[in-house]
Amino acid sequence: MADQQHYSPGLEGVIAAQTRISFLDLQNEEIVVRGYNLLELIERARYVEVVGLLLDEQFPTPERCSELESQMVQAEVPELVYEILAKLPARMHAMDRLRTAVSALAAADPDANTADPDAERAKAPRLIGHIAQIVANLTRCAHGEKPRSFEPGRSFAENFLRTLVAREVTAAEVRAFEQSLIAYSEHELPNSTFAARVVASTLADAYGALTAAVASLKGPLHGGANEAVMEMLLEAQTADRLEELIRHKLARKERIMGFGHRVYMRRMDPRALLLKRTLQELVNARGSGTELVAMCQRGEDVMRTEKGLYPNLDYYAAPVYYLLGIPIELYTPIFFAARSAGLLAHIIEQHQDNRLYRPRVLYTGPRGLKV
Amino acid sequence: MADQQHYSPGLEGVIAAQTRISFLDLQNEEIVVRGYNLLELIERARYVEVVGLLLDEQFPTPERCSELESQMVQAEVPELVYEILAKLPARMHAMDRLRTAVSALAAADPDANTADPDAERAKAPRLIGHIAQIVANLTRCAHGEKPRSFEPGRSFAENFLRTLVAREVTAAEVRAFEQSLIAYSEHELPNSTFAARVVASTLADAYGALTAAVASLKGPLHGGANEAVMEMLLEAQTADRLEELIRHKLARKERIMGFGHRVYMRRMDPRALLLKRTLQELVNARGSGTELVAMCQRGEDVMRTEKGLYPNLDYYAAPVYYLLGIPIELYTPIFFAARSAGLLAHIIEQHQDNRLYRPRVLYTGPRGLKV
Repeated sequence: MADQQHYSPGLEGVIAAQTRISFLDLQNEEIVVRGYNLLELIERARYVEVVGLLLDEQFPTPERCSELESQMVQAEVPELVYEILAKLPARMHAMDRLRTAVSALAAADPDANTADPDAERAKAPRLIGHIAQIVANLTRCAHGEKPRSFEPGRSFAENFLRTLVAREVTAAEVRAFEQSLIAYSEHELPNSTFAARVVASTLADAYGALTAAVASLKGPLHGGANEAVMEMLLEAQTADRLEELIRHKLARKERIMGFGHRVYMRRMDPRALLLKRTLQELVNARGSGTELVAMCQRGEDVMRTEKGLYPNLDYYAAPVYYLLGIPIELYTPIFFAARSAGLLAHIIEQHQDNRLYRPRVLYTGPRGLKV
Repeated sequence: MADQQHYSPGLEGVIAAQTRISFLDLQNEEIVVRGYNLLELIERARYVEVVGLLLDEQFPTPERCSELESQMVQAEVPELVYEILAKLPARMHAMDRLRTAVSALAAADPDANTADPDAERAKAPRLIGHIAQIVANLTRCAHGEKPRSFEPGRSFAENFLRTLVAREVTAAEVRAFEQSLIAYSEHELPNSTFAARVVASTLADAYGALTAAVASLKGPLHGGANEAVMEMLLEAQTADRLEELIRHKLARKERIMGFGHRVYMRRMDPRALLLKRTLQELVNARGSGTELVAMCQRGEDVMRTEKGLYPNLDYYAAPVYYLLGIPIELYTPIFFAARSAGLLAHIIEQHQDNRLYRPRVLYTGPRGLKV
């Protein structure tokens, strides 16, 4: 019976899905994505290749890549979605505007009410393209400016970055940005992916499941962390003041964002290690930003010494985005845009072999009351 | 280690939350809500009393009830939300329009980014009022008509029903409708409530958690069932043809909506039993609708004999709503509006004693592939 079972708060250590998509192998310290090591993908693959790998269950051929990339780049965001975004006030949280836009995307899809894996796989590249364009135009729309479209002649990653920052971008910048997209693309069963699978298991469609994932990622214990990291770095301004700020927060038992991870616990998030290198390479290519690197290193040192905690991906993604000139309110939306590939793979997998999520509770309230 | 554990698909039988809100006690066949038997609440309480019970953890005094009811009735839906609804096409699924509207509601709340239980308890009655008014105007907005407001001099249940059907309603009709609202108000940890708690556990706010619940309820394996039941009854038109239709579907191994329930399994959903009585009382008061009752009874008999399956709440809520003259596309939105009270209680409880939901997976994909 359910009520005699062990209860693990937050489902810690509980297996909640069988999957062929990804796995955090702690024993071998490897993030497995469709059989590949995520770190190798970050180093050697393109984002569109990872999208193909996630959706097709095999590393895509160059032909498949071109097909995917043109679907992603040429996907036209329905005018209705931009009209709705223009109505939402700039003071509304960017993730709330994104959540509303992703929900509204269903309006333009005559096939929005099905939970058919084949149809979902077919529309996935277009959806990833829509989401990236919405994210890249989120701040613009909130300020009454006209949204910009992606340009067919350029790669998805370049289009995404130059639309975000509204300027020409260098190859080094595109590569740094693309590495962050791959790092964020898929990561087993974090809260947002779990939320998407839970919703999908009612045979609700991909739009609903993706909307739930945006709602989840907004939370400061999840995607919201990358923005909190940048606010802290900006507040500190120097390595010395960051150390002071962190020690002050620790003394008041405040949480320091960007450190620790439920699964990795007391070792460093391998993605953070790689993004730290990406940050250094970006600084080398620009010839500026060394004080930001020094500040991040100091924060890392203090937290390891004082708390035995290591940086997670958000800690090093934030300064990369800052150096690229991306508005801070878009850091978490970019996380979602990158993760939409992994989310769609999970939604498709859930719909391929579905079982409704419906757990039980441990009831500790009163009994036997009468009206 | 996680990977040596038992895996229960759909988390069947797994305890995923500790709660003081409600419990399906199968041994004693009782749905416990804050210590009370839900069936007694359906028979003897008003919906606003159940809202107070859910939010305050105690049965409300008459003074508290008036306070709650005026907050719920007088809550003014932000004009922006109606403007967005007016933009969404009528062909868009009603639950997709509702999901977008609930997400957009956050725009008007300057306090939308907090996960503070006290603030959430304070705003809950207003949110329940907003959602009911949005649901009652959903079809109207989609057809370019002006939304109607609730009127201060009338009860919440009467306002909700007369705004849905755009006519004066009888006391018997209001009571039947109110009983359905109480029946739908809270039910332990179904998929939508679980989705809301999962999202809330990132310390995302109530708007995000509620939006995820709308997404979940749309699914045909969850809230979408009440509409599917009515479509089937309307297709059949007579008891004989319904029997024929069900036998035909069973022979083709098709799923019959409105029967069976993960938790109740092979006994009748006690709420269905009560709504069956509500349906009969409504038919008696109207002096018409006996053929609908006969049809429902026949369906129930065939399914029990052929499959050993019993009706769930959706099976008897559907004909009640039909006799009240409510548009079918609003059945699932009404389910959500009624459940918003229970959902808010769960979101508040999650934020009071939070632990991030982050389960693990059983990985069955390939390993060791190289880029």
